[in-house]
Amino acid sequence: MKIGVFDSGIGGLTVVKSLLEHNLFEEIVYFGDTARVPYGIKDKITIIRYAIEAVEFFKNFELDLIIVACNTVSAYALDEMREVSDCPVIGVVEAGILATANALKDKTSNILILGTKATINSKAYEIGLKAEGFHNLQAKATGLFVPLVEEEIYCGEILEATFRHYFSQTTSPDAIILGCTHFPLISDALQNYFSKDKILIHSGDAIVEYLEKNFDFNVKYNNPKLEFFASENPDALKAVSKKWLNI
Amino acid sequence: MKIGVFDSGIGGLTVVKSLLEHNLFEEIVYFGDTARVPYGIKDKITIIRYAIEAVEFFKNFELDLIIVACNTVSAYALDEMREVSDCPVIGVVEAGILATANALKDKTSNILILGTKATINSKAYEIGLKAEGFHNLQAKATGLFVPLVEEEIYCGEILEATFRHYFSQTTSPDAIILGCTHFPLISDALQNYFSKDKILIHSGDAIVEYLEKNFDFNVKYNNPKLEFFASENPDALKAVSKKWLNI
Repeated sequence: MKIGVFDSGIGGLTVVKSLLEHNLFEEIVYFGDTARVPYGIKDKITIIRYAIEAVEFFKNFELDLIIVACNTVSAYALDEMREVSDCPVIGVVEAGILATANALKDKTSNILILGTKATINSKAYEIGLKAEGFHNLQAKATGLFVPLVEEEIYCGEILEATFRHYFSQTTSPDAIILGCTHFPLISDALQNYFSKDKILIHSGDAIVEYLEKNFDFNVKYNNPKLEFFASENPDALKAVSKKWLNI
Repeated sequence: MKIGVFDSGIGGLTVVKSLLEHNLFEEIVYFGDTARVPYGIKDKITIIRYAIEAVEFFKNFELDLIIVACNTVSAYALDEMREVSDCPVIGVVEAGILATANALKDKTSNILILGTKATINSKAYEIGLKAEGFHNLQAKATGLFVPLVEEEIYCGEILEATFRHYFSQTTSPDAIILGCTHFPLISDALQNYFSKDKILIHSGDAIVEYLEKNFDFNVKYNNPKLEFFASENPDALKAVSKKWLNI
C-alpha cells in the first residue's frame, strides 16, 4: 500500500513515526502545509478549503489511502475530503475515539480531551465518545501548547504555569486524549502534572491500532519509500524529519 | 487621502488605533490575512508572495498610500510590494528606526529589539539602527508573545515565566522596540519586568510620527470612512475592531 499523510505542518511527523515503527506501508508521501500553518486557530470554511487542496495535491501520487494526521482537519473536513478523494480517507479523531473505547472498559471513566481551539469547538471527540457510551467528559482548548512545543519547550516553569492556567478548574481525569499532533511531545510533563497513572491517547498509536483492525497487513515493509513535501521551507521539514524520525 | 493598512491578522489594528487618534485620513481600508496568519514563523519567499497578493487586493480601492502595519512584512517584502504597487508603500520598521533615532539622542544607548522569529532573523532593525549610528543593540525573537496576546494573556505568571525564559541573558536596555503589532498589549508587563523608565517604541506611534514628518496634513478628518477586510472570519475582525478601536 502507498499512503499519503496530511498535516497542517510538521506535527504529523509524530504520526509517521508510529507508522514507521510498525512497518505497515511500502510507500509514504507526507504533505505538511507549512505555508499556512497553524490550522487550529482558523475557521471551519478555511480548514475545509485547505484540506480539499491537500487531496488535490495527493492526486499526483495514485495513493491507496490518505491518513489525516491533523486533529483539526480530522474534526472538520473528513467528509469533504472523502467527496473529492479517489481513495479512502481516515482521520486521527475517529481512530482516537476507538482507541479510547478500547483502552477504557469503564464507561464512567473521566476523559479529558485536549486540542486546538478549532478541534475543541468542533466537539468531534465529545460526540464520538458519547456515541461510545462515555459521558464523563471534560474538553479544554489548550492552544498555547502548540507554539510552546514549536519553541521546543517540553518542560519547565512556562509549561507548568500554562498547565495551572488551563487546568485550575479541571478534575483529575482517568485518561487524557492528546488531540493535537504536537501534544505527545509534552506527554511526560502532562503526566507529571496530573500523575503518572493516566492513560494517554496518542494519535499516532491510535491510527496504527485503527489500521490493524480495519486492513489486512500480510507483508512488513522494513524500508518503506518516504517522500516529504511542504508548502514552504522544505529544509525545515527535512531537519525535523531527520531529528524526530531518525532517518 | 485614502489609505490601505495591511497586516497578517488583527494585530495591525493597534496601528489603525494610532492613525484614528490623529485623524489624518479621510478613508482607511484595512486588510488582515487572517486565513494565513501568523507570518512571523514563515519563510521570506512565502511572506513576499503573500505581501504581493495584498497589494493586488488593494488595487480594488484606488489608494493614495499603503501602510504595512506588520513588522515581519515590513522587514522582508517592502521592496517587492513597491514594485507592484501603484501608490507609495511605507512600513513600520523604517518608521520605528526613525522614531528610535528621534527618541534617543545618545548613540551609545542600549536598544533591545523584540520581534517575531522572521523579523529578528531579517536584521532589518539592526541594519537600520546601525546606519543611524547606534551600535549597542540586543535583538531577541520573542515569538511566544504573539499567541499569549491572542489568548488575552497580558500579565501574570505565564508571561513572567516567558520573560525570564527570553531575557535571562539580556542586559537592561534604555529603550525597547516593540517590533510586532501584538507587543504593545504587553507593554505594561514589559515595563514592570525591566522597570518603568524604559523608552518604548510602538509601531503605531512611530508611523504617525513618520507620516507627519513626510506628508502635509492640512485637514483633520474626524469621521474617517473605515472598511475592514479579512481573508477568513471577518466576524472575529469585527469583534476585535469594536473592542480595540471603540467603534
